[in-house]
Amino acid sequence: MARILITSGPTRQYLDPVRYLTNASSGRMGAALADAALRLGHEVVIVSGPVAVDYPAGAQLISIETTDEMLDCARKTFATCEGLIGAAAPCDYMPRFIEPNKISKTGQPLVLELIETPDVVATLGQAKRSDQWVVGFALETEDRHFRATVKLQKKHCDLIVSNGPQAINSADNEVELLDPVGEVIAAVTGDKHHVADELLSHIHDRLICPI
Amino acid sequence: MARILITSGPTRQYLDPVRYLTNASSGRMGAALADAALRLGHEVVIVSGPVAVDYPAGAQLISIETTDEMLDCARKTFATCEGLIGAAAPCDYMPRFIEPNKISKTGQPLVLELIETPDVVATLGQAKRSDQWVVGFALETEDRHFRATVKLQKKHCDLIVSNGPQAINSADNEVELLDPVGEVIAAVTGDKHHVADELLSHIHDRLICPI
Repeated sequence: MARILITSGPTRQYLDPVRYLTNASSGRMGAALADAALRLGHEVVIVSGPVAVDYPAGAQLISIETTDEMLDCARKTFATCEGLIGAAAPCDYMPRFIEPNKISKTGQPLVLELIETPDVVATLGQAKRSDQWVVGFALETEDRHFRATVKLQKKHCDLIVSNGPQAINSADNEVELLDPVGEVIAAVTGDKHHVADELLSHIHDRLICPI
Repeated sequence: MARILITSGPTRQYLDPVRYLTNASSGRMGAALADAALRLGHEVVIVSGPVAVDYPAGAQLISIETTDEMLDCARKTFATCEGLIGAAAPCDYMPRFIEPNKISKTGQPLVLELIETPDVVATLGQAKRSDQWVVGFALETEDRHFRATVKLQKKHCDLIVSNGPQAINSADNEVELLDPVGEVIAAVTGDKHHVADELLSHIHDRLICPI
């Protein structure tokens, strides 16, 4: 049995004390993956951004808000785990400056300079030990298959799950699971619990208990 | 008895199909106000952005996503109402351009030009009939009292509720209710249901059934 880290949900990057950049990730895919992993007897730690979903009680939950916080907690936790499933949708841009007070409207446009946040999966993938594995998620609106393969290699993943924007905040998902050479191992469609069971079964056979 | 429109929750302004600007408004204050108004025998229509809160079943609920959609629905609904309580926190900036596909990371900063969204309460306040009333909310991090009074006048409100950023996504609130000359009619602290009851009682005495 393995100790698995699952990142889940969105993160938030604030412009000022009120406004932030984010996405509609609901944490449902992460919750379904945690549930599937627990039912297979694994130990699960979830690092999650702000969501309304209920995570399974059997998992350890660490709640964070920003991408930096997610990276920090995920890095510390991953040191004690065999695997990472990066199901979160961390906000990948953040304002270069955060205003300490609420920005007042002036009637004029507001120019916001955004810089990239650290990539959680890539950072952990790059530093993984030889006994550790990493499964990433790629959400793309175009060239899905190609872009997912590029991400898998760039992020040092062992497998990557490719899905589209309709996955966000939905009960269902339609995914492809790709191996390091870009071959489609599995294509799964259905509610996120079914998709999670199928993904965990492949992760188990290929990464946790390879035959 | 009155038919009251309550706007509630945040709105979202998308940069691309995945990323958006928003705030952490939970809809709890709107839900508590709707509940308080229903218990006083009023009819309630809620126009709400995406929230996880449960609104009272006795209220009519119209769900929207962007500030333009909130304004559009609120304007149509307000024509059939006596009053508006603007408890929503609509996203007040939006990207000038929305990218049709997910913006890809390039390693370079991303400059985003934001323009102001229409002001829902100000638009409805400006066009209100003589038999209609408008209560706004002002959330400020500094000069709260002064800024709330300026907003009240600019938005043609009959009363304005001033609160701070700690109100967002909290079970509690600490508010001041101000009249058009900036006088504090009431200062209420406590859980949002208590605050809502107090606010509705003042709205009732001053605007719905003035003595």
